[in-house]
Amino acid sequence: MTDTLPTHDDVRRAAERIRPVAVVTPLIESALLNEELGGRLLIKCEMLQKTGSFKFRGAYNRISMIPEAERKKGVVAFSSGNHAQGVAAAAKLLDTPACLIMPSDAPAMKIANTRAFGGEVILYDRFKDSREEIGAKLSRERGSTLVKPYDDPGIIAGQGTIGLEIAAQAKAMGIVPDAVLAACSGGGLVTGVALGLSADLPGTTVHSVEPAGLDDMARSLASGKLERNDPAARTICDALMAPTPGDITFAVARQRVKSGFAVTDAEVKKAMAAAFRHFKVVIEPGGATTLAAVLTGKAPIKGRTVVVVASGGNVDAALFQEALAQA
Amino acid sequence: MTDTLPTHDDVRRAAERIRPVAVVTPLIESALLNEELGGRLLIKCEMLQKTGSFKFRGAYNRISMIPEAERKKGVVAFSSGNHAQGVAAAAKLLDTPACLIMPSDAPAMKIANTRAFGGEVILYDRFKDSREEIGAKLSRERGSTLVKPYDDPGIIAGQGTIGLEIAAQAKAMGIVPDAVLAACSGGGLVTGVALGLSADLPGTTVHSVEPAGLDDMARSLASGKLERNDPAARTICDALMAPTPGDITFAVARQRVKSGFAVTDAEVKKAMAAAFRHFKVVIEPGGATTLAAVLTGKAPIKGRTVVVVASGGNVDAALFQEALAQA
Repeated sequence: MTDTLPTHDDVRRAAERIRPVAVVTPLIESALLNEELGGRLLIKCEMLQKTGSFKFRGAYNRISMIPEAERKKGVVAFSSGNHAQGVAAAAKLLDTPACLIMPSDAPAMKIANTRAFGGEVILYDRFKDSREEIGAKLSRERGSTLVKPYDDPGIIAGQGTIGLEIAAQAKAMGIVPDAVLAACSGGGLVTGVALGLSADLPGTTVHSVEPAGLDDMARSLASGKLERNDPAARTICDALMAPTPGDITFAVARQRVKSGFAVTDAEVKKAMAAAFRHFKVVIEPGGATTLAAVLTGKAPIKGRTVVVVASGGNVDAALFQEALAQA
Repeated sequence: MTDTLPTHDDVRRAAERIRPVAVVTPLIESALLNEELGGRLLIKCEMLQKTGSFKFRGAYNRISMIPEAERKKGVVAFSSGNHAQGVAAAAKLLDTPACLIMPSDAPAMKIANTRAFGGEVILYDRFKDSREEIGAKLSRERGSTLVKPYDDPGIIAGQGTIGLEIAAQAKAMGIVPDAVLAACSGGGLVTGVALGLSADLPGTTVHSVEPAGLDDMARSLASGKLERNDPAARTICDALMAPTPGDITFAVARQRVKSGFAVTDAEVKKAMAAAFRHFKVVIEPGGATTLAAVLTGKAPIKGRTVVVVASGGNVDAALFQEALAQA
């Protein structure tokens, strides 16, 4: 499995592919919050990416790597929502039919948007059905290509373009980050970011952030083998519920991700409210885990420079209001 | 008065001054919303500017134009909040003491942030006191320079850097906007933007947007003379309550602003919710007036390309929750 590990060059090639269509998202900071924290905190604003999350990058890169004759047969993907939206939007731009397998309890906004991007949506029960099996079956039946959510070098390389951008933006600002934090479900984002940073910022450590009770990557990194989450574990971070790291993502993570943090739902809600207050951006629960790791002090910031990837902003209004009310 | 009108070259010089410290804010769009609207809508994200609004640009430009000996005596400004924050933050970067005269009913966040930026805050009654008189008196007593909120060529030129950025970003995207909309209180933003656009996008029309009942600029443009608002008029757009256009801003507006729109508080709240949903950004009431003008159909978008300046994101959580709840 690990002979197909993605490389920094794959990330560079992905950057060439997505350049005409993806947003170079800003890296912003708040002077007041920096003062409070006694360090320098920068937010990579992936909620401003097309489809409202980083997933568009990997999806577009992966789909554009499919040979054209194959691409016409369509793509199929399973996702709690952001990958579905990314695949639907990327497939549309590449004139490819897309079928998306989504959990029936995904945020209404994510399901509606996936349909609006022209994707065909099939709903499944997150706690009873195997989305992997449904996806493989559809892929066999239709001859369409399965676009995995994370355990694929093309997906990882696409997400890695965030790392390249952080390196370039940090350089332009005269900053050398001590650490970069990225949320982790299956591991495509955090490993991609680590690969993307590796050439220009080899001394910057990269860390995963997961919901408490669903911190399979943190535990896998600590034990050196693939750990699984308790299937009974729940979180408001709907985007971060993969049961275990991918084989490819874990192989990359062991080389390039230093350690992982875990944050509670209450900590995540406070971070969403802090992002509203200090950065004027909307971060969905999964995307706010990284900010939560810093604000709780779990990831040290004092006297340091830390970049947190805010991976998406696709949250229903009711949950966002709840986060604002509790802060 | 009009012999001191700011020029496009003043805007270019302002851009040089603010470059090392200001954020080049992104110009973003939503494929789904564009489809709904049947046109192309781009949002200039000034809520991501330092201090959470465009006001930092004008303040930094104006204060850096004060001779250094004068600058040491400090600056004084009157503002409902965003100009106060901009002046406080800019003064701090330029090592200048700042005294800010703010209405006692300004959003708590704006008052708190102004203090946090190191500014000395003096509160006044928006409906009884004259902030202009208080500002002039303090300026005389302390020998500090009055940094006006809008009716000053240095302020207008600073805000105009938004127009320069829009022109450059539109060019990079291969877009020629039909229209650009900017919110209007005293007129510093909309006239600056018009000046900034004038060299590269001479065919793009520029329009002001104001709260209904406080649309003094729209009425002044229509009548050709300075019109005043009814002092009894109220709005949730706390940043847009100037009683009449400035002399300088109106002189520029007559040359470069085509017409003005007015939107109600209910329309503004819906626009704030739409920005949450489609763009994942926080826009304060005054900043959302431009988006409201498009979403209500007052500013035509069908078959056209329209840029709206979202001028700031400094809104208290309670009001933002209310906007989300009513959408």
